[in-house]
Amino acid sequence: MGFTCALLAVSIICVTLFATAQNESNSTPASSNVRGAQSPRVFTDGRVSFSLKAPDATTVQIGGPFPGAPFPMTKNTEGVWTVTIPPIVPGFHYYWFVVDGVQMNDPGSSTYFGYGKETSGIEVPEHGVDFYSVKDVPHGEVREHWYLSKTTGDWRRCFVYTPPGYDKSSSVHYPVLILQHGSGEDETGWTRQGKANFILDNLLVEGKVKPMIVVMDRGYATRAGKEPVNFGPGSSQHNFREAFSAFEDVVIKDLIPTIDSSYRTIPDRNHRAIAGLSTGGMQTLFIAPRHLDQFAYIGSFSGPIIPGLNAGGQPASGNSRPQFDTKTAFDGAFADPPAFNKRVKLFWFGVGTEEPQFRGSIKGAADALRAAGVNLVYFESLGTAHEWQTWRRDLHDFAPRLFQ
Amino acid sequence: MGFTCALLAVSIICVTLFATAQNESNSTPASSNVRGAQSPRVFTDGRVSFSLKAPDATTVQIGGPFPGAPFPMTKNTEGVWTVTIPPIVPGFHYYWFVVDGVQMNDPGSSTYFGYGKETSGIEVPEHGVDFYSVKDVPHGEVREHWYLSKTTGDWRRCFVYTPPGYDKSSSVHYPVLILQHGSGEDETGWTRQGKANFILDNLLVEGKVKPMIVVMDRGYATRAGKEPVNFGPGSSQHNFREAFSAFEDVVIKDLIPTIDSSYRTIPDRNHRAIAGLSTGGMQTLFIAPRHLDQFAYIGSFSGPIIPGLNAGGQPASGNSRPQFDTKTAFDGAFADPPAFNKRVKLFWFGVGTEEPQFRGSIKGAADALRAAGVNLVYFESLGTAHEWQTWRRDLHDFAPRLFQ
Repeated sequence: MGFTCALLAVSIICVTLFATAQNESNSTPASSNVRGAQSPRVFTDGRVSFSLKAPDATTVQIGGPFPGAPFPMTKNTEGVWTVTIPPIVPGFHYYWFVVDGVQMNDPGSSTYFGYGKETSGIEVPEHGVDFYSVKDVPHGEVREHWYLSKTTGDWRRCFVYTPPGYDKSSSVHYPVLILQHGSGEDETGWTRQGKANFILDNLLVEGKVKPMIVVMDRGYATRAGKEPVNFGPGSSQHNFREAFSAFEDVVIKDLIPTIDSSYRTIPDRNHRAIAGLSTGGMQTLFIAPRHLDQFAYIGSFSGPIIPGLNAGGQPASGNSRPQFDTKTAFDGAFADPPAFNKRVKLFWFGVGTEEPQFRGSIKGAADALRAAGVNLVYFESLGTAHEWQTWRRDLHDFAPRLFQ
Repeated sequence: MGFTCALLAVSIICVTLFATAQNESNSTPASSNVRGAQSPRVFTDGRVSFSLKAPDATTVQIGGPFPGAPFPMTKNTEGVWTVTIPPIVPGFHYYWFVVDGVQMNDPGSSTYFGYGKETSGIEVPEHGVDFYSVKDVPHGEVREHWYLSKTTGDWRRCFVYTPPGYDKSSSVHYPVLILQHGSGEDETGWTRQGKANFILDNLLVEGKVKPMIVVMDRGYATRAGKEPVNFGPGSSQHNFREAFSAFEDVVIKDLIPTIDSSYRTIPDRNHRAIAGLSTGGMQTLFIAPRHLDQFAYIGSFSGPIIPGLNAGGQPASGNSRPQFDTKTAFDGAFADPPAFNKRVKLFWFGVGTEEPQFRGSIKGAADALRAAGVNLVYFESLGTAHEWQTWRRDLHDFAPRLFQ
């Protein structure tokens, strides 16, 4: 039947086309693989094996944010390149192949939006830890919601988590957490990489968290008719402010109104939180102190503290350590700590212990704020880096403190 | 500030890292690109240009379901490979690079689940056609819904479109369309590639369609404790039946009950439709006639007619043309056409005129069924192939005929 070849030659069951299984008994295909893909595989001790068929390639490597990367792969007589890398820390990691200098995705992996593009990812289980697993508990929904932004002039997509039972009553109203992704990621990150919906489902069934709506928007915004503002390498703090300011208007003028008119929210500051990871943390720390009439709960997950943006004082130059000035930081929001403490019910900083590039300044800012009398919760994720396992743990600590 | 390099070196604004813009005045970046990517570009006449930086590669090609593919690319002095391919038919097309024999995604493209893995895709606009565009109209939501399947023993994800206004009233109940993807695709296909949500939003605002809930499930199912059944190349019709039978149980025993208990449906056959594209059409034609107590509306979009599965008679061998037998086809569902017509309110076949591998047998079956007295709507999509533009047009014709 010729048509079955035409139709089904690409059947996903035939996954061995690109990936050769390494049927080692103490390893299993990663849960982040596409259905049926036998590679990559995760070993019980945290090692990971990768494979790619590329008979004509001269060099193939595994790249990613693992210590020791890139890892060279070796080719067998059938043209299949393989490598097993040393144990990596549990959690979700982006990765990629580099084939003769060209970066490419692994056909065996699902893709996740990171680094400004679709990127392969691998999930390494953490033994005995299941707070972000899909379990036999009531599940909320993650809804794709489209809205027209006056700020940007275009239709934007956000995702909205509604808790289990949301549709069972038309009279219950809920508080709202706005939860933002990091640089190079997008509005899919918190559920796909972060598993925020399962974290909340699981906390809810344990009675540890208030039922809430979680809004995950796209952290990029360009004002209608304007060119995008570059806040990448070499940009000045001015560009951070300018880039964040368009997103600030989206959140305050477009997103909050559309959420409050579309969902059964409790539309006041005492029932609205904002948090974000990395650049999303920077955005949170830029937006929230300027709009304390909108937010009573504020969280920054590995959000860099930046001179001239949110550290107060003057912009530092080169690689000098930022000077954190509690009087002028965050546009002076902490100049009067008792007044801030009265207004803000939760101010929360988190960072992984393996984030040398951020931990010092984040802990320094937290220490300085607390010394000045600001109530602040400081959380460290042991052994994790500037990656999603840190931010899953952050959400798991942060969410139960909201709306209590 | 070293940390900005660490943090933002991957900023999505720096998209020129992999793709070099071809700033030709009569072309624009494809709408299927990731934000900011300048390549691929679509020309007003339907030509498409692609580019990839790969200085060390010996050959680079563009592959995909276009006439004439694969297309060789040529390298400039900076190591950037480019090609502009002849005009291709409007709509969504999968594509990929082949770099020294290795298939890889385009970092400038979003990815779409097809061919059993994440694959690049390009959207070529159809002039004057906007029935699947996001417009300034009320939008429904697409909800990620998780449910535990007794059939498979695992948690499954489906997507559920709820029409605009669903949350505004707690008393309105809706009919349900179950809408399935094709082989190698998944439950994301109908909204990401197919834009089913926008098609329905637009039809609704024009008053051409009844408000309905659309359920898009994952068409793969393996019975708990069993090995997956291969229905790929070389498989017998027995395997189709066996593979589809697990999915049949998921639909009838797991999916319909979870949808009816989770959403405000009208839970009877007169308010339930099932349709699918390609393999999803085969699944529809396998499931629906066996469960006419559940469905009054049936649609097959480019669904192959297979001897021994749904064509009646004996399985054909080799490439012989299937014999369609109206008495035994579909397990005898049409042996009594008047009875069938009384029971089934819509029986709908569609196919693209550029589907030589399927059009003959689908039209042949439609003609035979109509000659035997079966009421059947037969729709042809002019000039389109076994691709999503055909299936978007199918939905646009099919949906308004439902629940009237």
